Amino acid sequence: MPTLSVFTDVPLAHKLEGSLLKMYKQDDCPNKLFLAYRACMTREGCPWVSVVVRKTQLQISQDPSLNYEYLPTMGMKSFIQASLELLFGKHSPAIMENRAGGVHTVGDNGAFQLGARFLRTWRRDANVVYIISSQQEPHGLVFQDMGFTVYECSIWDPKKLCMDPNILFSVVEQIPRGCVLVIGNILDCKLTLSQWAKLMSALKSKQVFPFFDIPCQGLHNGDLEEDTRILRYFVSGGFEFFCSQSLSRSFGIYDEGVSILVVVALNNQHLLCVVSQLTSFAQSLWLNPPTRGARVITSILCNCALLEEWKQSLKEVVENIMLTKEKVKEKLRLLGTPGSWDHITEHSGTHGYLGLTSQQVEYLVKKKHIYIPKNGRINFTCINASNIDYITQGISEAVFFTRGQENRLPKEKKP
Amino acid sequence: MPTLSVFTDVPLAHKLEGSLLKMYKQDDCPNKLFLAYRACMTREGCPWVSVVVRKTQLQISQDPSLNYEYLPTMGMKSFIQASLELLFGKHSPAIMENRAGGVHTVGDNGAFQLGARFLRTWRRDANVVYIISSQQEPHGLVFQDMGFTVYECSIWDPKKLCMDPNILFSVVEQIPRGCVLVIGNILDCKLTLSQWAKLMSALKSKQVFPFFDIPCQGLHNGDLEEDTRILRYFVSGGFEFFCSQSLSRSFGIYDEGVSILVVVALNNQHLLCVVSQLTSFAQSLWLNPPTRGARVITSILCNCALLEEWKQSLKEVVENIMLTKEKVKEKLRLLGTPGSWDHITEHSGTHGYLGLTSQQVEYLVKKKHIYIPKNGRINFTCINASNIDYITQGISEAVFFTRGQENRLPKEKKP
Repeated sequence: MPTLSVFTDVPLAHKLEGSLLKMYKQDDCPNKLFLAYRACMTREGCPWVSVVVRKTQLQISQDPSLNYEYLPTMGMKSFIQASLELLFGKHSPAIMENRAGGVHTVGDNGAFQLGARFLRTWRRDANVVYIISSQQEPHGLVFQDMGFTVYECSIWDPKKLCMDPNILFSVVEQIPRGCVLVIGNILDCKLTLSQWAKLMSALKSKQVFPFFDIPCQGLHNGDLEEDTRILRYFVSGGFEFFCSQSLSRSFGIYDEGVSILVVVALNNQHLLCVVSQLTSFAQSLWLNPPTRGARVITSILCNCALLEEWKQSLKEVVENIMLTKEKVKEKLRLLGTPGSWDHITEHSGTHGYLGLTSQQVEYLVKKKHIYIPKNGRINFTCINASNIDYITQGISEAVFFTRGQENRLPKEKKP
Repeated sequence: MPTLSVFTDVPLAHKLEGSLLKMYKQDDCPNKLFLAYRACMTREGCPWVSVVVRKTQLQISQDPSLNYEYLPTMGMKSFIQASLELLFGKHSPAIMENRAGGVHTVGDNGAFQLGARFLRTWRRDANVVYIISSQQEPHGLVFQDMGFTVYECSIWDPKKLCMDPNILFSVVEQIPRGCVLVIGNILDCKLTLSQWAKLMSALKSKQVFPFFDIPCQGLHNGDLEEDTRILRYFVSGGFEFFCSQSLSRSFGIYDEGVSILVVVALNNQHLLCVVSQLTSFAQSLWLNPPTRGARVITSILCNCALLEEWKQSLKEVVENIMLTKEKVKEKLRLLGTPGSWDHITEHSGTHGYLGLTSQQVEYLVKKKHIYIPKNGRINFTCINASNIDYITQGISEAVFFTRGQENRLPKEKKP
């Protein structure tokens, strides 16, 4: 065909998700390990799914009364209601006063996509977004694509090997009035209550608009309420905010990514306006959100027995994570690995920092075929009885090997 | 709370989908009818679902080997492959030469959302979009939101009561070089093969980029191949194009809106570049697409027995539609309704024009509580044995009542 392609100038896209995973898949070494799955893994190395999910999936598929009609653009009402109650508690003032609502969104980025569009259109002056998180968030890309100026800031201090609340404070000090502040997983922030109060007052006086991310409620402390306690403080502090509530991971239905863009407004009238605008954006994005994930989650949340069973399954996962972390720390200690490894058990949640230098990570990837992101943040549920020795020995080796070229500072400076 | 809401300036959104449906729901009249559902309805007035779907849903839910891991951003490979083969045929040159591909998208608008983003970024000079369709398409909004100048044009001629191919030709004559031409349901165009050839040559010489919409393959003629024959001509004509292939409706899983943005390029190298860029847009839109709909469809398409059963179910639906249309026409004739009603049976597909004036539609809505969109385009599957008499009598009444104020021209001019 002699014609010139209309796509002649289109290059290959860079930085697509999963380049580490691609490297791992192409590796022929039989000992290779991948420690950066987004999904929570079982002891057998499979993606974890809450026991109640399979049962509920079956019930739904056997229900002859169910039709497969389109959901309204706003999504499944019962799903939104149940999710809001899970997030804030049934008796939250925001719920009682009808000023908390939401729109059913798609995938882990959908709520950010929708929220960013709204902010771009209705808060034209706020074109700066700060993202504070313990990791590189995919949402940065969403805001960037929409024309926002995005600043990302990690609260993980790789030198002190801990989450540093002071980073959060210094960011809030320098951010411009009226900007958007995305707070990644709020539980990583490690602020005391009085520190939260101080932060909230700074945010208020600067009219900063908070945009929270609750990516896996229940998988941090194994306690659903505990995991969103800070969010409830913001409600009682009279804040208006957005929150991306993604529940798929907490149920183990990663493949049915459903989320909600939660809106808290000062009153019902404002809420209705905001939700109606969000719905019109959703119309252009996907018209109708997919149902299955929302249906599974709603069926579980609205049934006391299933709800209890789900809560129990969350507790088990979290207990297992803590046990794994303890074991990793202990094994590193027994191997005489230099340095303190307390930071491993100091943080809750599936993912956490190993506290390795980039050379150490490189050693693990290249010499041991243990695939770890450059920042050393791994998914601890990828570690199980059959690989923990290989992993801890690898880490220990990496630390010994790179001892000369160390750029990781010791916890206390030697005199 | 004395603080001023940050949402103070946000008004209620207008023109949200479903205002007619809302009016219908608020109507207390026991005889009320809604004839504009997007879903295909059964004789019993429920959303139609292909018999194979329930069986397949159950099989999937009972499969213990299935895990619920994230899909890659690009989506489910087997789903994309099976859908492409359904669209173009297994032996299509575009498939054999590895220059047809796609990205798994969400909902009925997802493919347009993704395609519009791509065109906005990579074909910056093409900022004009023409949409030719038999109806008002929701995609117009998608392109508009993205900053395109959008012109919409209906090929339905309400005076001649037919689809007029000349409208398509006159649009193509006046559109600017290099613009994007969205062709709604291609089967409504009613062009002869030689007319298509003429059109294709005009599009080529003006370097127009075609963007097709295949919203319900198989539900037009009950023949999957027949429904996409024109698209295959475009492939053999050496065109590069996008196509939104939405399969949910053809299976009756409206609630799991999955679609594919299909790309046909001149060669594999261009295809890979385009797909990689689309994937990076999808990353920011939803990160990972939901799986269930794609899994159901792929299970059916890749199993000969299920595939046959599905094809049979499509045939039955289409036969039933034609039967309903015949009956409506016959009843209108028996009621002595003035005018020709041949246009009802002249067009295939679930939806079609009744050929009513706006006054007649208003009469039906206000006096008979039969809810019909202003343009008189209804879903014929909403008509069944229990309501056909009420509907045809209503139409007849409306025509008689508005006879004096008629603005609908007769088919042939009287001397």
